[in-house]
Amino acid sequence: MTISYRLADIAVQLGGRVLGDAEVRIAQIATLEKAQPDQISFYTNSKYRAQLAGTRAGAVILSEADAQATALPRIVSDNPYAYFAKVSSLFNPLPEAKPGVHPGAVIGAGAQIDPTASIAAMAVIGECAVIGAHSVIGACCFIGANTVIGSHARLYPGVVIYHGCVIGDNLIAHSGAVIGSDGFGIAMDEGRWIKIPQIGRVVIGDDVEIGANTTIDRGALDDTVIEEGVKLDNQIQVAHNVRIGAHTAIAGCAAIAGSAVIGRYCLIGGAARILGHLQLADYVEIAAHTLVGKSIREAGSYAAIYPLGRTEDWRRNAVHLRHLDDLVKRVKALEQEIESLKGKER
Amino acid sequence: MTISYRLADIAVQLGGRVLGDAEVRIAQIATLEKAQPDQISFYTNSKYRAQLAGTRAGAVILSEADAQATALPRIVSDNPYAYFAKVSSLFNPLPEAKPGVHPGAVIGAGAQIDPTASIAAMAVIGECAVIGAHSVIGACCFIGANTVIGSHARLYPGVVIYHGCVIGDNLIAHSGAVIGSDGFGIAMDEGRWIKIPQIGRVVIGDDVEIGANTTIDRGALDDTVIEEGVKLDNQIQVAHNVRIGAHTAIAGCAAIAGSAVIGRYCLIGGAARILGHLQLADYVEIAAHTLVGKSIREAGSYAAIYPLGRTEDWRRNAVHLRHLDDLVKRVKALEQEIESLKGKER
Amino acid sequence: MTISYRLADIAVQLGGRVLGDAEVRIAQIATLEKAQPDQISFYTNSKYRAQLAGTRAGAVILSEADAQATALPRIVSDNPYAYFAKVSSLFNPLPEAKPGVHPGAVIGAGAQIDPTASIAAMAVIGECAVIGAHSVIGACCFIGANTVIGSHARLYPGVVIYHGCVIGDNLIAHSGAVIGSDGFGIAMDEGRWIKIPQIGRVVIGDDVEIGANTTIDRGALDDTVIEEGVKLDNQIQVAHNVRIGAHTAIAGCAAIAGSAVIGRYCLIGGAARILGHLQLADYVEIAAHTLVGKSIREAGSYAAIYPLGRTEDWRRNAVHLRHLDDLVKRVKALEQEIESLKGKER
Repeated sequence: MTISYRLADIAVQLGGRVLGDAEVRIAQIATLEKAQPDQISFYTNSKYRAQLAGTRAGAVILSEADAQATALPRIVSDNPYAYFAKVSSLFNPLPEAKPGVHPGAVIGAGAQIDPTASIAAMAVIGECAVIGAHSVIGACCFIGANTVIGSHARLYPGVVIYHGCVIGDNLIAHSGAVIGSDGFGIAMDEGRWIKIPQIGRVVIGDDVEIGANTTIDRGALDDTVIEEGVKLDNQIQVAHNVRIGAHTAIAGCAAIAGSAVIGRYCLIGGAARILGHLQLADYVEIAAHTLVGKSIREAGSYAAIYPLGRTEDWRRNAVHLRHLDDLVKRVKALEQEIESLKGKER
Repeated sequence: MTISYRLADIAVQLGGRVLGDAEVRIAQIATLEKAQPDQISFYTNSKYRAQLAGTRAGAVILSEADAQATALPRIVSDNPYAYFAKVSSLFNPLPEAKPGVHPGAVIGAGAQIDPTASIAAMAVIGECAVIGAHSVIGACCFIGANTVIGSHARLYPGVVIYHGCVIGDNLIAHSGAVIGSDGFGIAMDEGRWIKIPQIGRVVIGDDVEIGANTTIDRGALDDTVIEEGVKLDNQIQVAHNVRIGAHTAIAGCAAIAGSAVIGRYCLIGGAARILGHLQLADYVEIAAHTLVGKSIREAGSYAAIYPLGRTEDWRRNAVHLRHLDDLVKRVKALEQEIESLKGKER
Repeated sequence: MTISYRLADIAVQLGGRVLGDAEVRIAQIATLEKAQPDQISFYTNSKYRAQLAGTRAGAVILSEADAQATALPRIVSDNPYAYFAKVSSLFNPLPEAKPGVHPGAVIGAGAQIDPTASIAAMAVIGECAVIGAHSVIGACCFIGANTVIGSHARLYPGVVIYHGCVIGDNLIAHSGAVIGSDGFGIAMDEGRWIKIPQIGRVVIGDDVEIGANTTIDRGALDDTVIEEGVKLDNQIQVAHNVRIGAHTAIAGCAAIAGSAVIGRYCLIGGAARILGHLQLADYVEIAAHTLVGKSIREAGSYAAIYPLGRTEDWRRNAVHLRHLDDLVKRVKALEQEIESLKGKER
């Protein structure tokens, strides 16, 4: 059942230049530290030079610059990390899911399930929903009425997609992800909150991955939009009417408030927060645990993190933040005093 | 299937004063930008003046002050945003759910399901649970033994409510919400944590909405209490024995630690954190991503946010926070030096 | 159906020294404030002295130091809080689950379910999965293929464990917890993200508790490891290849980024964030809402929290953080000026 390839075969399939014995057989990928002689590893960071020296790996993927860093059989690539990803996919294809609808699933009237799709036990597909070719809907998933899912989707168990959403091809959604829940729309009326119906949709492009327990709310009036190639980690909150530009990647626990517009190719750190109605340009990087409270018009790297200290040091220092404005005024006063003293001396 | 009303009919149902052609027929609500001639829009912010000028909407909702801001047919209201919410509800009633228990649901012995309630496929209702009139329990929901849910609840697919909880009328709970899970109660005993049984309940008042993947833990001994009219967004954590006062609204990803007591009509920003055992007065507003580390006795607006900067600026500035106490002492020393120098001059 | 014990019986079972009437019958545990004459309470904090004086409890658990703080029947213990936990477990045993597989569950080929285990309706057990003795798998849980779960596990409804994971004995996992989802592994390749297959596992030791909606990702190549006795609250994110040392407790909404290694007996506050690839020593305490951006080599307590203020004060003070480096330079310049002025005086 194990797949194995000669190093030469890998290079034929994925490109790159082989150095050393191209006949060595490889059956899996592993870290330098753990790799066995039938496994290939990768080297992208000089921090791991000692591990490269000591590895038992049968072959290594590395960059042109590091081509001579080992005498092991190796593949030289322009982008060793991406090459590693491709090799790993070669050895670790997704398990096939049996096409068809499990008898323990419930399919709503008018739903269109492609015959190559797989619907697991306990899944519930709403009326008139569409499930594309080769898509896999896991156990206990729920797909709302009229929602359209493209081809080659993989929904792990317990994903919920509400009604009327539109999903492109190749979606990966991990367990507990919720797509299309109501946005947080309320209006105060004589001491009571009134709910604002959320009648927009969630529209998701091709090649999007959504992490476990991530939530994406449907739009209030217009849609919430996740463009193609966006990658969302676990426990991210995407509020109503957010737009996330293509190929942006967002790390775990980040939150994007309502109507924020994130550019393309942004990198949003874990637990970062983007306030509502802001705009972020393309290629913006936000550090972890950073609150973005104003729009960012220029590409670049942004942060807002309180520096860590021992609690007793933190306490002694942080207290002054409540009086920083006073401190600035005191310094200003000192500067004036000094000027005055210097004037008198002249 | 589309509902439509004359502008005059809307005002009869919802109040407000019609200006312009009261006969125009309206079938949906939309933004100024997207509205079509059979749609009504709303105008609450002068920022959107250009959109108001260009809108194709058939009618607009606005305030008395803006009554002459457009020549379109319009409804003038004291509270245009709440009026918009009501109009939207008029055009977008919740889809009816068919009363009865789906054959694919599992109902525990002694459970009381009102005949007007709707229990979806794959739902599991525990022993002696009570589901009130017109309540809708979605697919894959779980209701624990002895839990009581009032009338007109709407639980979206995959909501879990543990045993013994008490829920008022009109609950809306979105997918992945967990109500009544154990609080985080542990005691250290000779190098090992012992679990403290969590024997309190979650008690929820009428008209509460709970967002997707929000968690509300049951009390350790006494109950966790969510008072009427509270609105919780997605991915909020409410720890054991918290009490949230009536009509408080909490944005996504906020967290309330154990035994904290939040007042009525508070507004808690996204990703804000309230530490355990604190008390917040009524009408307190907390900014997003703010940690509240002490009780707040007075209504008002509070914040604790590190200001955003380019990463290189942030790095250059933030490092000094570790020495802020020294800086203050240096300023103090300078002030004394100046005084001394001035003294010598006299 | 109610269990009751004489105070003397409790001490026989759990240790401790009885003072006062050892014959008093106790049927439940409660807070000092709410306790009735057939209930036992506990006193561990002098803040509750008034409540101790006024309690109607039939007996009290307290420390040697407080042994004379009340005349009520009492049990004196070295560790009253742990004693309280044990007493509560005595009066509140977990409800028994009926052994066997519910007809509404789906069991994969080759799965091994211990005959004493209990599999609820709508649960799905993957091929060749193993469920140990006395383990309880709740409704709508999903256990992936080849995953092994030890004895006495309790999975509340809607827990998902992906394929190939290894779980010790006595796991408690609350609803919505996701174990074994893919880590966030992507590589940029000519403008598109490529997915890195996540082929490691999640390996969990004995006596671990996992809160509601907490997510633990499987390793990229090696495993993610949660050692024995770790306690995780709700909505925690544990990224791929993290290792959490034995008996560490982590409060709600914390997040541990990829490959971080947390020591034993650490206490991580709510919503704290540990960046990737960092190491924390044993016995490290991290304050709530604190970002840890560098490794911590020494036990102790660490914090990084912006102090709370009224929004207008915060705004006036925080703005200066963008110019803190300038301020420090201005103070430095003043110090030099003063030295210069003093020099001239001499």
